[in-house]
This record gives sequence, structure tokens and C-alpha cells, in this order.
Amino acid sequence: MDFTAELQRQAARVERGLDQYLPPADTRPERLHTAMRYSLQAGGKRLRPVLVLAAADLGPGAPAKRADPLPAAVAFECLHTYSLIHDDLPCMDNDDLRRGRPTAHRQFDEATALLAGDALLTHAFALLAEHYAGQPALAHALLRELAEAAGSRRLIGGQMADLLAERQDAATAADLEFIHLQKTAALLEAALVCGGLVGGADAATVATLRRAGRALGLAFQIIDDVLDATADSATLGKTAGKDARAGKATFVKLHGLDASRRFAAQASATARAALRELPGDPGFLVALCDAMAARSH
Amino acid sequence: MDFTAELQRQAARVERGLDQYLPPADTRPERLHTAMRYSLQAGGKRLRPVLVLAAADLGPGAPAKRADPLPAAVAFECLHTYSLIHDDLPCMDNDDLRRGRPTAHRQFDEATALLAGDALLTHAFALLAEHYAGQPALAHALLRELAEAAGSRRLIGGQMADLLAERQDAATAADLEFIHLQKTAALLEAALVCGGLVGGADAATVATLRRAGRALGLAFQIIDDVLDATADSATLGKTAGKDARAGKATFVKLHGLDASRRFAAQASATARAALRELPGDPGFLVALCDAMAARSH
Repeated sequence: MDFTAELQRQAARVERGLDQYLPPADTRPERLHTAMRYSLQAGGKRLRPVLVLAAADLGPGAPAKRADPLPAAVAFECLHTYSLIHDDLPCMDNDDLRRGRPTAHRQFDEATALLAGDALLTHAFALLAEHYAGQPALAHALLRELAEAAGSRRLIGGQMADLLAERQDAATAADLEFIHLQKTAALLEAALVCGGLVGGADAATVATLRRAGRALGLAFQIIDDVLDATADSATLGKTAGKDARAGKATFVKLHGLDASRRFAAQASATARAALRELPGDPGFLVALCDAMAARSH
Repeated sequence: MDFTAELQRQAARVERGLDQYLPPADTRPERLHTAMRYSLQAGGKRLRPVLVLAAADLGPGAPAKRADPLPAAVAFECLHTYSLIHDDLPCMDNDDLRRGRPTAHRQFDEATALLAGDALLTHAFALLAEHYAGQPALAHALLRELAEAAGSRRLIGGQMADLLAERQDAATAADLEFIHLQKTAALLEAALVCGGLVGGADAATVATLRRAGRALGLAFQIIDDVLDATADSATLGKTAGKDARAGKATFVKLHGLDASRRFAAQASATARAALRELPGDPGFLVALCDAMAARSH
């Protein structure tokens, strides 16, 4: 398998899906739909939707049990993008730059960014409800997984805990693990699980995907912390060193650079081992995990 | 039927449901769950959840097809409360008072209010996904209805259009109808429809509920506009005259008080006529419609 070619193929599939499954920009109210598309089509790694597609492609579900994973993949990018838009708002991180372009509230205004985020969150659920309507049990399982991953105990809970840790400047290692597992790992885990569900995976495979996603998410976030401390803004496409200056709880701040790199390598190894247990050919997912571990942005 | 007693009974059921189906305030992160409960338990008319319960109680579904409507009722109040929290934020209406108490961002802070709103929106979907898991087809139908009603073409679209009309100060009668149908009627309509679905209603009954909800929503919003122009803040429990001062597009501004009262009466009559077509005993819903038309806050 040519990893780079396969990654490009899956990412291109995601880009087409984003265009296909978002309301057109000329849908009333146009400003809202333009803003949704602006943030969603700003590029990025498309990691979450690629995980959905790759997990679905694994099989081993019987063709009759499988469904098109693309709407689910797009739902995950909608959800991820909503969290970025709201995170960037002045009352949160107050960021001007995202993926090398003005953030939504800088390009439009705060109210439009707020509503575009709300709309992308809601659209993630609408996409799953609409496109898997022919298989209500599958639709329900996907919706439940997404709602839990995005909820107050997981994604949003992690963002709140992150904010509180920053304010109090007193995060412990346990706080930090909670933040990272909820803020980042929740969605990566759910992406792999939902991909598996769409692909007709059995319960054991879904459990393995969940375990892999959790470790992958932890690795991903620790590497994010390392890059924030070591890379420059141009490479990152966002303001570097910002987390450290803001007094955010990061692995690097708590454990130092060397230990953080070691933690990231351990979590990546855990993810890789879980992925190798998967049926079918998990080669692409393993290579994706390795690429994540070695990434520079 | 004693309307007041029945309304109190249903509202008390909602209050118990809100406590039962929200994560406890001591769930980590505590500040987020405290804020979610603060806004949700601030009182209010509980109109949407009461509509869910009343439509579900109509029957006429066979007992085997029926499910407990309370989680769905709570989901609608979560969704309504999220929209209020975000609407009150400084970048939107910048309101300090809601139901006679400080708004969420005044009581906590902007970031917490933003995340509490996000979490209540997500929790609405999670509640439906979790509590109707035993009937995946029903769960799917409810989730789909809620996602559409709350989406960028309906609830959020209406809020965006409202905001744009206020900025441009040039709303036409058609703009205003779009705003009111999406911003207010979408959720009332979906509440009646979801109540019907939980109660096992057939397709014709669901269609009648949808028609009634649309007219009821329009009436409700026109009366809101009339009250904003005529009542005082103490009676309303929110800042009176604010919409007019903000240059918001309202029925009163566009058509004057008398015509607005006439429009509201017409829409109420349309809703009442549709409700009377319903099977079972729609007496409570008809009385609720009349009480809405005669309300002073």
C-alpha cells in the first residue's frame, strides 16, 4: 500500500463529501451557510473523517450490512469544526488564525461564528439521521455514539476542564489526562467506532477500535502540546507557543519535553498494537498512526 | 377537565424530569453541569415539554407501541434553553435578565455559558438516543425530527435571519414570517410531532400535529412581539421594549398593534381548528392554545 496516495485518496473523498453534504451557500440564510462552509472548507488534516472511512473500509461486515461511510465522515468533520469555531471565540481562546486563515469570528463576526458553530454541531446529527434512515438501528447507534462523545462529560467537558485548569494554573497529571482524553480522544475514538459500525463490524472489533482510538487520541494531543512548544506558527498554521503563554495545562508544562515525547511514543505504540489486532487489512490505519506520531504540524 | 390543574400536573412532571435526566451538578466538570442546571431550572412556562407530554398522552397508539414521553419532553426543554443561553450572550442580544434571574453569562461567565449551551444542545440528542434505545426506529425518528427543527434552515436559521434583519433594519413581511416560522414555530411544531411519535400516533395524526404546531408557533411569537411592546419588565421576567429599541423586526413594528393582535388571533384559531381534528381527547391542547393566546407574559 502506498500510504501517501491512499491518504490523499481518502482526504479527497472527504473534500467531495463536505461539498456534497453541506447545505449550499445560497440556502437562506446565506450568511450562515457561507460561514459554515468557510470554516469547514478551510482545509486541515481531515483526520477524524479519514478515520471513519478507513475503519469502515476494513470490513469485515457482509456487504448487505454495510452503508456508505461518507455522510458519517462528514458528520465528524462538522462536529470537529464546530468545536474549533467555538474554541476560537474571544470568550474562549480568542484566536485570530486557524489553518492559516482568519478564524470565523474574524472573517464574519462573533454572532455569525457562534451560530455557524451551533449549526455545524446540529448538522452532524442531522446528517446521521438523514443518510442512514434506511437502517434505523445503525442510524441510532451512530447518533448515540456521537452524542456521547460530544457531550458534557466528554468533548465539551474536556474543553471546560481545560479552561478551568488554565484559569487556576494548577492542573495535576490526573486533570491533564482527563482533559486530553475528553477534549481530543473522545472524538477520535468515536470516529473509529462509527466507521466500524457503518462497516458492519462485530462487537469485539468495535471494542478494539475504541481502545485504539483512545490511545491514538492521547498520543495526538501530547504531540500537539510538544509542537506548540517547539514549532513555529507558519508550520503549524496557527499561533505557536500560545498554549504555554496562556498558561494552559499541557504535557510539556507538567512533564517537560523529553517525558512528553516518551509518553506520546508509548501511546502511539499502544494504538498501533490495538490496530494490528483488527480483522481485514489495518495497514493504512497503522501507517496513519505512525504518520501522526511523526508529524510536524 | 380542570385546565389549570392539568397544566400544573404536566409542568410538575417536567420539573421532576429535568432533575432526573440532567447529569448531577457534581459530575465532573462541576462548573459546566452546575451552569446547565442553573439555566434549565430557572422556571419558565415549560411550553415545549408540556406539548410533548400532551401530544403523547393523546394516544391513540397501542400501549405496546408507546414509550415514556418524559425524556423527549426534557430534550425539548434542553434545546430551548440552549437557544436562550446563546441568544442572551453579549455578541447576540446581550441580555442580563432571563426569567427574572441573571442570564448564564452574567451568573457564570461567557465561556461557561457558551459551553453550557453547547452541552444542552448535545444533551437533547443524547437523551433521545439513550432513552429510546429499546425502540431504535422511534429513537431515530425523534432524533431526525429534532435535528431538522434545530438546524441551520430552521431554529438557527431563524436566529441568524432575525439578527440580520435587526442589523439592516429593513425586514419585509416575508422576512418576518420566515424568522418567526423558523425561530419559534420550528420547535413547537417538532414538540407536538415528537409527542405524537412517542405516543404511537399514525402518519395522519402526526401531520395534523405538525400543522397545529406551526400555527401555534406563529401565534406564540406574534403575541411575544405584542407583549414586548405593551407589558412591563416585571411582568415579563425579561427586559420589556428591548426588541423595539434594538430595532428588531417585530410584527408590531411592521404591522402595528391592532393588526398584530388580529394576526395572532387568526393563527390561534388555525391552531385550535387543527387540534380539534386530533383523535383522542385534545381538550387540554385546545385549552393550552387558548391560554397562550390570552397570556400576559
